[in-house]
Formats: sequence, structure tokens, C-alpha cells
Amino acid sequence: MRFFPVALERLTEQFARLPGIGGKTAQRLAFHVLSLPEEEAADFASAILEAKKSVHLCPCCMNLTDRELCPICEDDDRDHSVICVVAEPRDVIAMERAREYNGLYHVLHGVISPLNHIGPDDIRIRELLARVGRGQVKEVIMATNPDTEGEATAMYLSRLLRPMELRVTRLAYGIPVGSQLEYADEVTLLRALEGRRDI
Amino acid sequence: MRFFPVALERLTEQFARLPGIGGKTAQRLAFHVLSLPEEEAADFASAILEAKKSVHLCPCCMNLTDRELCPICEDDDRDHSVICVVAEPRDVIAMERAREYNGLYHVLHGVISPLNHIGPDDIRIRELLARVGRGQVKEVIMATNPDTEGEATAMYLSRLLRPMELRVTRLAYGIPVGSQLEYADEVTLLRALEGRRDI
Repeated sequence: MRFFPVALERLTEQFARLPGIGGKTAQRLAFHVLSLPEEEAADFASAILEAKKSVHLCPCCMNLTDRELCPICEDDDRDHSVICVVAEPRDVIAMERAREYNGLYHVLHGVISPLNHIGPDDIRIRELLARVGRGQVKEVIMATNPDTEGEATAMYLSRLLRPMELRVTRLAYGIPVGSQLEYADEVTLLRALEGRRDI
Repeated sequence: MRFFPVALERLTEQFARLPGIGGKTAQRLAFHVLSLPEEEAADFASAILEAKKSVHLCPCCMNLTDRELCPICEDDDRDHSVICVVAEPRDVIAMERAREYNGLYHVLHGVISPLNHIGPDDIRIRELLARVGRGQVKEVIMATNPDTEGEATAMYLSRLLRPMELRVTRLAYGIPVGSQLEYADEVTLLRALEGRRDI
């Protein structure tokens, strides 16, 4: 026997397809949407359609944008000879928050991950090579996550880029500022020691 | 400086309004929706609108339905002289899963909770009294949650119902079947002892 209206079950299924949302949570979210005023539910639905319609990838850096070129690529005050390679759009925000970097970005939209069947052709590597191939670029900074897949992706890319006569660098590893030494893991400490600098 | 397209931020805000969804999760969900094929995103949006349009409360038991009367209230094979009072629509499912109960339901849509400014008039108590007032009902079973607010609500209702010449009962408290005695809390054990039965 069916206890809930079909439309409610359909909405629950839609929520359950989202990453990290299980069946119980999906049901809770669906109930919540039903309890919203008509207008707010309509706003939610139109936000989905509007985002899907207006947002696309910047043809230069592959970041998400609703303009022809994203604001960073469009900005002539930024250094167009440096490209920082990140895995996801949210990493661009993290970098920008540091207010230090003034070059451009390239968003890979993923990392190479053989276990998940994601190879070099499944992320935006081709676009990066084409971009670098057009000359002008002097340095590529790898800023993928410091985990196995992020490192493997950075290594793979640096091998491809090295013959192209430019500097390929990687963000420094080390102990995070404000952290406590006693809680740092061994690998991080090892990297911090290897990367030590004169003061 | 704005890093993301307005439409993406609007969608993120919409997700962040859902209960239990924080800012980071909302962003992750918004990115996910952007990565969906056009058609699936449209399905999601229409599921929201469709659910909101077709689902309403059953005028008899206040459960969610898309028909005039919900399938349970409509079912002539069920005992219309017994009403089981629950707090939420999902509690109806839990009860039905036991495949034992054959009466009708009444969904309160909440419990009395002075701390959250939810009084008797904010939940569907008036509708229950009107229903019982029409006669025909011989027993009302309280099946609100066994927590402070659920119990207080059950007590409040039973005081209102007692003068109406019908049986008012409550689900039995006790140790859950399949659980282990050593892990049962004291209050549950006390209630199980009080409610002990001859075998």
C-alpha cells in the first residue's frame, strides 16, 4: 500500500539523489518543502532552473560563470602569465580569500582517480594544455589537494608541462599556521622539515 | 568581489534554508545540481512544483494526500471507531509498518512545545475534537513520541477527550523487542516493570 502521494515520493526521490543525502533526510527535506508558502517553493524551483540556464564554464579557465568570460580572466590588472591549477571551483574561492595571488586559474573539475574510473581525459587537462600552448604563460602553480589523488594529478600534469619551457611549481607543504606542533601528523612534519627555510 | 555567478549563489541560499543543511553542504548541493544534465535539473524543479501543487491535507485525518480523502480514511475495511493520534505523517508510516493497527489516524503536525512557542492552537487539535465530537469514535490511542513534549501533548489531549465518553489509551512503554536489557535506560526499565503483564 502506498502511504504518501506520488508527488511527495517523487520529490523525496529527487532529494535522495543529491550527494550525501540519505533516505530519511530526503523525506525530511521533502516535508519541509511542502510546508513552505507557495511562493517560496516556486522560488526554489526557479533557482534551480535559473542556475542551470545561466551558469556555464568560462571558456578560458573553466571556472563557473554567467558572463562570456569569468571576472578573473577578464581582469586586466591580474597577471595573465601565471596559472594556478585547482581541482574545484570552491578552491578558487579559498585561494582568493588569501588575497595574495594575482594570476589566473584553471579549474580541472576533478582529479585523476583510477579507482573511480576518472582518467586524464575526464577532467579539464586538454583545455589547460591548449591554454599553455598558446604561449604567454610563464608559470603554472599546482594547487590540487595534498592527498594521494591530488598529488598524482599534480605529478601527471607537471610531467606534461615541463617540456613546454615554463616554470611548474607546487604549493608548499608544512605545518598550518596557528596549529599546534604536537597535533601535526608525521608526514606533514616530515614535509615541513624538508621544506625548511632560512630566517 | 563576487566569485560565483548570482544564479549559483541564489541556488546555494535556497539549499541553505532547508533544515539541517549548512552553508558548505548547500554549496556542494548547488554544484551538484549544476553538474546534472539539463533534463534532470528540470525534473527536480518540477518535482518541487508538482508536490506543492498536488499534495494537501486529508480533511478528515490531516495526513498528506493528493486525493479528496486519504486512502486510509477512504478504506471501508478499516475500523472507523478507533483513531490513533500521531505527531507527524511519517509516524503513520511507522505504525502501518507494524501491520497490526486497523483503525484511522489523526496527524497533529507537531506537538505542544511552549519553549518553541507552539501552543495547542498551532497543531491540529481543533480538528481532532471536531472529529470526535461527531460521535462514532469509541477509542482514541495516543501515539505521540515518548519524550517530554510528546507526553505532555498526550496528557493535554486526554484531559480534553476524557469527558467525551470514549476510551483514551496510550501505546505501552517498555523495553524494545530485540534490545538488550543491560543497555536499557532506567526510566524505560521502570516503565517496563510498572507495565508488566502475566504470562
